[in-house]
Parts: sequence; C-alpha cells; structure tokens
Amino acid sequence: MMREKIPTDYEKIFHPQKVAIVGVSTEGQAVFNFGSSILKAIKAMGFAGQILPVNPKGGVFAGLHVYKSVEDIPDGLDFAVIAVASRFVPEVLEACRKKGAAAAEIVSSGFSEIGTKEGADLEQQIKEIAAKGIRVIGPNCFGVYCPKSGLTFAPGPDLSRESGSVAFLSQSGGMSVDFAHVGKWMGIRFSKIVSFGNGVDLRETELLHYLACDPETKVIVMYVEGIGDGEDFFRAIKSAARQKPVVVFKGGLSSAGQRAVASHTASMGGNRVIWQSVLRQVNAVAVQDMEEMAQVSLALALLPAKTYKAISVIGGGGALGVNACDTAESFGIEIPLFPAALQEQIGSFLPKPGSSTTNPVDVGNPFVPPRALKEVLSLAAKDSRVDLQIIISLLHHYKVNAGVLGKTVQEVAPYEELAQVLREVKQATGKPIIVVLPNLKRGIDDLDVAEMLSLARKEFVEHGLPVYDEFHHAIRAIGHVNKYYEVKGAKNE
Amino acid sequence: MMREKIPTDYEKIFHPQKVAIVGVSTEGQAVFNFGSSILKAIKAMGFAGQILPVNPKGGVFAGLHVYKSVEDIPDGLDFAVIAVASRFVPEVLEACRKKGAAAAEIVSSGFSEIGTKEGADLEQQIKEIAAKGIRVIGPNCFGVYCPKSGLTFAPGPDLSRESGSVAFLSQSGGMSVDFAHVGKWMGIRFSKIVSFGNGVDLRETELLHYLACDPETKVIVMYVEGIGDGEDFFRAIKSAARQKPVVVFKGGLSSAGQRAVASHTASMGGNRVIWQSVLRQVNAVAVQDMEEMAQVSLALALLPAKTYKAISVIGGGGALGVNACDTAESFGIEIPLFPAALQEQIGSFLPKPGSSTTNPVDVGNPFVPPRALKEVLSLAAKDSRVDLQIIISLLHHYKVNAGVLGKTVQEVAPYEELAQVLREVKQATGKPIIVVLPNLKRGIDDLDVAEMLSLARKEFVEHGLPVYDEFHHAIRAIGHVNKYYEVKGAKNE
Repeated sequence: MMREKIPTDYEKIFHPQKVAIVGVSTEGQAVFNFGSSILKAIKAMGFAGQILPVNPKGGVFAGLHVYKSVEDIPDGLDFAVIAVASRFVPEVLEACRKKGAAAAEIVSSGFSEIGTKEGADLEQQIKEIAAKGIRVIGPNCFGVYCPKSGLTFAPGPDLSRESGSVAFLSQSGGMSVDFAHVGKWMGIRFSKIVSFGNGVDLRETELLHYLACDPETKVIVMYVEGIGDGEDFFRAIKSAARQKPVVVFKGGLSSAGQRAVASHTASMGGNRVIWQSVLRQVNAVAVQDMEEMAQVSLALALLPAKTYKAISVIGGGGALGVNACDTAESFGIEIPLFPAALQEQIGSFLPKPGSSTTNPVDVGNPFVPPRALKEVLSLAAKDSRVDLQIIISLLHHYKVNAGVLGKTVQEVAPYEELAQVLREVKQATGKPIIVVLPNLKRGIDDLDVAEMLSLARKEFVEHGLPVYDEFHHAIRAIGHVNKYYEVKGAKNE
Repeated sequence: MMREKIPTDYEKIFHPQKVAIVGVSTEGQAVFNFGSSILKAIKAMGFAGQILPVNPKGGVFAGLHVYKSVEDIPDGLDFAVIAVASRFVPEVLEACRKKGAAAAEIVSSGFSEIGTKEGADLEQQIKEIAAKGIRVIGPNCFGVYCPKSGLTFAPGPDLSRESGSVAFLSQSGGMSVDFAHVGKWMGIRFSKIVSFGNGVDLRETELLHYLACDPETKVIVMYVEGIGDGEDFFRAIKSAARQKPVVVFKGGLSSAGQRAVASHTASMGGNRVIWQSVLRQVNAVAVQDMEEMAQVSLALALLPAKTYKAISVIGGGGALGVNACDTAESFGIEIPLFPAALQEQIGSFLPKPGSSTTNPVDVGNPFVPPRALKEVLSLAAKDSRVDLQIIISLLHHYKVNAGVLGKTVQEVAPYEELAQVLREVKQATGKPIIVVLPNLKRGIDDLDVAEMLSLARKEFVEHGLPVYDEFHHAIRAIGHVNKYYEVKGAKNE
C-alpha cells in the first residue's frame, strides 16, 4: 500500500497553516462535542495557523466564523480534522481532498471496528477517496499531537507544549493520550505523536520511514496492535532501528488479546513467538507494558547514546543497596567495589556507624545534606569503571523532620539544592546521573509528601536528570539502552 | 541455635504489660534521640501497658518518671527497648535479664555489621547474655511493630493502628518501615512485624514456627538477607508454607549483593539457584522487589484462599483490554469470551459505538455511571467460568468533566458510589472484585487528581476491595495466589 505517485506532504500534516475542523458545535450548544473540544484545545496550545471551523448551521464559534461547508472555505486547506458522524465522513473527506488538503485526521468512530457491513463499507469509501490523493489518519483515532505547531489530540487533553525528541505512533488513541500525559510529568517531551486508529491509509510503516529521517526525532516509540503489510513493516523498522532506537509495545500477542484487537482497531494481531523473533532480529526495544515503555523512552531520550556497563549507587538504606546489586546483576550491569582509598575518602563525608562505602554507598540516613552528597558523587565518579551514577533519594522521610521542626515537608526537603548539586556533578564528571525517588507515603494523610515529590521531580527533570519511582525501573531501562547500543555497535563494526 | 530450655514467651514480646525504654533523653534535651522518639511513638499508638523510661540522669520525660537504671525499676519487666550506645548494650541487657524481661529489642547499631573487632566482641557478649535466658531481637534493627498492643518501630514512624492478618519478618529495618508505610495506604494490615537486624538470637526460623501457629496471622511475609541455620530454616518454612502462604523476598542473590549484605546485616547471602530451588520446593511465594511483595501480600490477605483461573475484565479503553489479555495469558489466567446472549445483555448498558462486550468489556468511555457498571459486573459474574472480576477505573479522566462543570474533580468523580456498588456486586455474586486505579496525571498541575485518587483508594480499601495501580500488578499477584494454592491443593490431595 505504499503510494508512490504524490509524495506525502508531512510538513502540512505536522505544521499546517490552514486547518479545517469539521463538526464543531454552533455557539450556544452546551453539549460536549469532539470537534469543538479539539478546536478549543488547538487554540489553547497556541496554534499559529488559521483555524477554519465547519458546521452546516454556520454562525460563530469561539470567536471564529463557522463555514457551512468545506466547500465554502475560501482559498485552500492544508489539513482537516473530521469529527462528524461516520455516515457523513466520506463526503466531508472528498470535499477536503478537492479543497487541496494534504491530509485529514478522522476522529469519528463507527467503521470496521464495530463489525457491521455498514461500518466496513464506509471504511472502504474512505480508502478509495484517500487513493485519489489525500492522506488519511484514522478513522477511530485521536489524531496528531505536535507540540511545536500546536496541533493536539481529540478530544483535547491538557498536554505539554514543550517539544522534544520522542515520537510515538499508536493504533490506540487511549494509549496516545495516556503516554502524552505520563510523559508530561516524567519529563518525556515529544516531537510528534500520531494516533492512527483503524489506520486505513497513513500508518506505521510509512510513518516509520518518515520518523527515521526526521531530524527532530531521536527515539521512535510504537504501540502496535496489527500491521498493514508485514514485509514492508519489517524493512521499515529494520532500517529505522539502524538509525535510532525504536521501542515497540506490541498488543494482542495472546489469543484473547487478538480477539480484543479485532474489536478495538480491527487489526490482525500475530503470533507471540514470531513477533519476539522479529523484534530481536531488527534490534527493536521490546517492552511489555506502558510503564516500561515510558521508562525506557525516558532513558533513551535523556542519556547519551552509549552503553552503561558499570554504575555507582548512592542511597539510603542497606536493603536498598542489597536489592540494587541483585537487580543490576540480573540486567548484566556491574556495581564495582570501590578501591579502599576511594572508600576512605567517601566515608569522610558520611555519618558513622550506619553508613557503608563499598558501592552501593549506604549514606547512613536520609538526611545527609546535598553538599555532602556532592562530595560522595564526585568521588564515586573518579572510579574509571563507573559509566553512570544512580542516587536513591528518600526525600519522603523529611516529613518526620518537618514535624519536629514545625515546618512543612516542602520547606525542609532540600530538593532544589540537590537538583543543583547533581547537575553540577554531572557536568563536572561527564557521567550521567539518574535519580530514584520512591514515594512510600501515598495515603490521604501524606498528600503534602506527594506534592513535595511532584515539585522535586519537576526540579530534577528541569535540571536534565531522569527520575524513576523505583530502582528496578531505572535498571531495566538502562538494560534496554545497553542492549540496543550493544547490538547497534556490533552491527556497525 | 534452637533453645529448648525456657520456652519463649511471645505473649510478653508482642503484648507486654511493662516495657522499659532504655536511652531516652532527659527533659529539655532537644537533640533527636532514638529512645525518646520510640517512647513518644508507643504512647501515640495508644499502648495500654506501663512504659518505664531509663536514663542515668533520671528526671521526667514526656510526663513519665525516668529511672536512673534498669535496676531501679520496681517489680519486674516484660520487655525492653534498648537504645543506648553499643558499648553500653551488654550491661543494660544483663540488667533487663535480671529484672525478668522475657525479651529485649536492641535498636542500637555498631556491632558485627561495622566489621571491627570491637563490634564483633560486643555482639558475642550479647549472644552470651541471651543464652542465659533473655530473648534478643536485633541488634541493629527497628524492633517490633504490633498494632494490636501498640508497640511500634524505632525511631517512631507514623504507622497504622489497625491490626490485620499479615506478618512480616525482616532483617532490614528500612524494609520493615517501608512495607508498613506502603501497607498503610494499600490496605495491608499487619498482625505483627519484626525487624531483627543482625539477628543474634531470635530470628527467622523460630519466628516462622511461631507465626505458622499464630491464629492472628494468615499470611507470612519475609525479607531475608542471610539465614542462621539452613536446615532448620528449610524445615520451618516448609512446615509454615503447608499451613499458610509464606512470601519470600530474598536479598543478596548476586555477588555484589552478597557484599552489600555483609556490610548491612553481617549475614551470608547464598546462591541464587539454590535459593530459587529451595523456595520452589517448599511452595514459598518468591518475589523480586518490595512492590511485588506488597502487591502479592495484598492479594493473599484479601482474596479467599483458592485459585482464580478465569476472570472478567471490565474497563475503559481498547488498548487496556488488549494488554489485559496478553498479561493474563502470560500468567496462565483466562479471560473467557462471553456467550452471545450475555454480551447482548451487557451491551444494553453501554454507550455505542465505542464499547465492546466480548470480555474484556470496553465500557466505551471513562464516564459510564456506577449504576450501569453494577449491571455490567452483575451480568459478567453470571458466566460460571468467571472466578474473579477486575474493574479498570479511569477516574483520573473526571478532571476534564470537573473543568467543564466548574467543579472539583473530587466532587465529580463518583468513587463513593462506585465502591458501594462494587461491594454490593461482590456480596451478591460471591466473586471477588479487584480495582485497578491508574494515575497517569502525577504532575504538579494535577495534585487534585492525586488527592481524589487517594480518597478513592481509601474508599475501596474500606469496602474490602484490593486496589492496584496497574492491571499487570494485579494479574501478577493473582498468578502468585494461583500458584500457591494449586501446589498446596495438590500436596494435600
């Protein structure tokens, strides 16, 4: 299904100047409506181009003139968002094509995924119109999110306006919105996300080709339920993964999952063993759930492109150190024993008894001040074997101090100073630092801790430090990074 | 090291009437002090027995007369908390023994774990005193937490006063406090937790024997770094696991982990393969990290003791359903396709298009009201193959509605009604219900969502419903439950 005749104008898809939104409410209608909601969201994102709302009743919506039809729009169109009932979609799409739109996203559902002949027929009509010269994203999707231009998903979730280096392709609209939400607080910033739902036209294979060459995209992430053409896809992902990491979350590997896929995006799932083997062959990063997908995306986006074979672990609590070693070993990552002289130097900054300097470094208690941690991390980086440092910061324990001092946990937890110090050490040593920031106090009595940790995470993220809830999440992510760059390095040799 | 002469008086350890706390501050001392802090914590827990503080300076502390020495305490003693510098510990312990204390917990550190001859000598002295007739918990530990009597850990974390059915044994003090904190908001309630640190006397094997017969303990959980006597331990865990589930988190399975264990609790770790094989042989539930330990403990505590081979999944979002199937299959749990007639009935309560009734049931959008979900769950339970139901509740999406309606997310998210409805369905059908409650909005702009979800979780927990952040956490926990009861059933046949 690769179209050779008219080259796809991706610039008009991701950075359109003139966007029609077909299916907005007319002023005064209180009912929730996808089209209106998207329009408001795109405006709120600060989209700089022209927004052209369409509704047969005309009028004014959100301060904009509403055209009674696509035909009524003067001049041309770059892109269209179609949010009308499924039976009206073909005629609207055809009108957009005639108006010169390079592409349209169809957020409406009610096509092949509902399993009726009517739905399948409507989908067939869309395919035929697309073949005449308009690229279609969808139907049954949430469309395009491009923070740089200001395009955003249906129905208009509150997403980040910051642009970044991670691209995401997803058959699932829910997964697109979820990942965008999670990325927002985890510090994953997106170049673009495309939710393509039933994927009748523009879908994973072509988008992979595009993203492999997109200079704004450093990491490609995909949620796949089924694929259009297996061989084309194989070539595309193989070629993309040679250039940059491609993370794949494959849904529908079980028999029940395949059944669920059929009623979700009307795709064929595919066998678990075949998928695993294909993903391994092409050196894709295979993940099992959205948490893992987000965690590895963060590491691939923020860590320099290399392997991290040995690490230092600086943290509070003996058991945390013990478990850190076990987890690291099971991912083939070493936590080398520090030389005696280095241990002695590190020990001079830590309380005794209760601390341990072997690596992992047990700092003895959660209240060791950032300036001492700075010395410890600077010293640990001197071990030439250490490629990366992980600090386990138990800031939630400051709640006890806050109580004793009659202050708030936000006032006493030194996360600002810690973030500053960690950035300084990272810059001075050239070795990345990951922060593990668990929250064991998530009850209703500890909302102040949740708030402080949200602020702390934001601070760390703004200082360019990846943050994970748990040590084993960080290690698994580094394990993926290592595997990808190891194989890539071997192939390029 | 099993002591046969004097039977251990566990009643005096967990429910003492007279407790000495040796090493409190004297009034006016502002310095943080373990003894004082424990004393305040035990008082705050509502401990009903007598608290007898000891400090050589005497005086009054927290309204209590401070004895100048253990010898000065009139009458006898049941239990002692020792929080003095390590070099003073032997004489204090000996005094407690002479006073008739059944046991003492030594929270002080500075013994074999610091790797000096002095530390090892002090530890040896403790062992010798213990052998004369006082049981010792510790040293280098956080002691005993028993919500029913009001004993709590050093240095006095804010833990639940509700008693429950989960017991926890841990060499790590940090892990004990962490698990108790996590249990608080997850809804895991404890019968007792013993943090025994270096474990010079009373430790895992004897405590396992005791807990296996303790009528208040339904589930035994252990964090183990090293063990005292391998054969004794093997017999104890085998016997305990025949009676009730024993969850084991083994730390120090890697070579670096064993090194960390040595400086943490001065234990010998043991080989990964041997441990895995032993735990499998005795039908212990082996977990890899604290998250998994807490998740499986919750399931074992709250679900009736049986296997759950087939489940229904009711939730919002097609991809969630697809991934649910994949995850369930990888743990051998079936999500059976509902019969057509049942699907039709279920479908009559759900919005169209967008919903799917096959199982997983995709409810179409996150705003389907609890009364409709009640009908769906009641119908799904009619499929006789279904042993348990999981509802994936995307309450965080109500933030959008709140914005539209000019209300708070707490006002619009119907978690109280949902908890009520789920309890009703559970009671009417006799099939357990698990709630999956993800929070994808954890940024600083969404603290209202975090608060609402904390309240929602509390509500579900109070209605006896286990709650998990992610579907795969719930499934993994059920997988452990199934494996345990399958093997137990087969052994009992």
